[in-house]
Amino acid sequence: MARYKLILEYEGTRYSGWQYQKDAKSIQGELAKAVIKSTGVKDFELMGSGRTDAGVHALAQVAHLDIDTNVIPQNFLYGINAHLPTDIHALSIQKVPDSFHARHSAEARSYVYQISMRRSAFGKKLVWWVKDPLNIAVMQESAAPLIGLHDFRSFASKDAEGHSTKVKLEKVQIEVSGSLILIRLVASHFLHKMVRQLVGSLVEIGRGKWRPESLAEFLKKPGPEPATVTAPPSGLFLERVYYPGDHRLTILKPVLSI
Amino acid sequence: MARYKLILEYEGTRYSGWQYQKDAKSIQGELAKAVIKSTGVKDFELMGSGRTDAGVHALAQVAHLDIDTNVIPQNFLYGINAHLPTDIHALSIQKVPDSFHARHSAEARSYVYQISMRRSAFGKKLVWWVKDPLNIAVMQESAAPLIGLHDFRSFASKDAEGHSTKVKLEKVQIEVSGSLILIRLVASHFLHKMVRQLVGSLVEIGRGKWRPESLAEFLKKPGPEPATVTAPPSGLFLERVYYPGDHRLTILKPVLSI
Repeated sequence: MARYKLILEYEGTRYSGWQYQKDAKSIQGELAKAVIKSTGVKDFELMGSGRTDAGVHALAQVAHLDIDTNVIPQNFLYGINAHLPTDIHALSIQKVPDSFHARHSAEARSYVYQISMRRSAFGKKLVWWVKDPLNIAVMQESAAPLIGLHDFRSFASKDAEGHSTKVKLEKVQIEVSGSLILIRLVASHFLHKMVRQLVGSLVEIGRGKWRPESLAEFLKKPGPEPATVTAPPSGLFLERVYYPGDHRLTILKPVLSI
Repeated sequence: MARYKLILEYEGTRYSGWQYQKDAKSIQGELAKAVIKSTGVKDFELMGSGRTDAGVHALAQVAHLDIDTNVIPQNFLYGINAHLPTDIHALSIQKVPDSFHARHSAEARSYVYQISMRRSAFGKKLVWWVKDPLNIAVMQESAAPLIGLHDFRSFASKDAEGHSTKVKLEKVQIEVSGSLILIRLVASHFLHKMVRQLVGSLVEIGRGKWRPESLAEFLKKPGPEPATVTAPPSGLFLERVYYPGDHRLTILKPVLSI
């Protein structure tokens, strides 16, 4: 038995999310099928760094796989990709020590959200098209107080209840790239729906519908409003999962050039 | 009756091409439907700068529309987009003098072809994934003799017969952008399938299957080989249609950032 680290990209549109589900198409389910088909082995463990919701994409999701096979990693990668659907792609597979754990060893997660400022014939499934003009400077300013350790319960779905809702947010980056607004959020972990509720709230501020101070206020005095402005999954990408020693990305690149 | 110039982008995947067809979905057909729905006018003339084939995309196709309506251009643009499918988008509409003709006034057309050097979960419909490694320097070198006025009959479908097959090619640009190879071709006009047969031939050279001199040789001594390596429509974009006074694009930008 050996442990392998897999890095995967996927367009989440057609899937119910990362997590295996009995009656729905999931990324984990498709990956497990490709492992079986390419190795002939049916008995293995497959663990993701975390779940992504239905319709959410990934540029570099990480999973570990415990399997007893003598397929060498190079052929293994080729074989898995030969059996994956076109919207899921394994970028790399490498043998790792048993001490590596896709979820527990992760130091930080990075998400990127793509907002499109215009209607476009391309990439509708990879953006959220916001029709109102957005004030980027105000969005950047109002996001600054989010950095640090805070109680983000306002920005989490109710199923987070019972768990700690304290999160140390490392970074919020908001940049314009062509017709897109890119928002990058980096933290050790995220609460369920947290990225989409933060993005939805930032958009309300950019539109001028919420006051710029409202984000900081929600940290002090939780309210139900952010849940009402949850951004759609189409614009969201799990960008990176960072493990000890990994270099952090600095340049914020769009997936689409429009 | 007034004449309008329309600039359109579209993802051609679902369509039989630009040209109206009785029993198939076409870009021109969808645009005509949107004009009728947004103006109520059924009697108008709609003329494109040229046809694009089934599955071919456009970043800025140009058409002119002769119509008797008092809708102002700003509302006209909004109305048409409200009635176009999500994979067709009107970028601009402006009133033009009757002397402007989408096809006859065009000085040059520019096409961009996107080759992907890797399997990717994103944008499969916007690229041609070539699995073999390609020698870009050799492709660039072998393309140079194409520039100028030549008989391109080797790089045209047989339905071009009976017409002149002489074309003045202004520019061939081959660049790498991330995992993509971008090929831009600019000429006053192109023969049917010419861009895809030139790209297919360049790929054979990049792969090392054809000699670098073969392109130049086909110009002197026509042969049927390029037709056998016609690149798929998925990677092809009509980039620009240039009219007198238009500035030429210089930077070669990908549609996808992979």
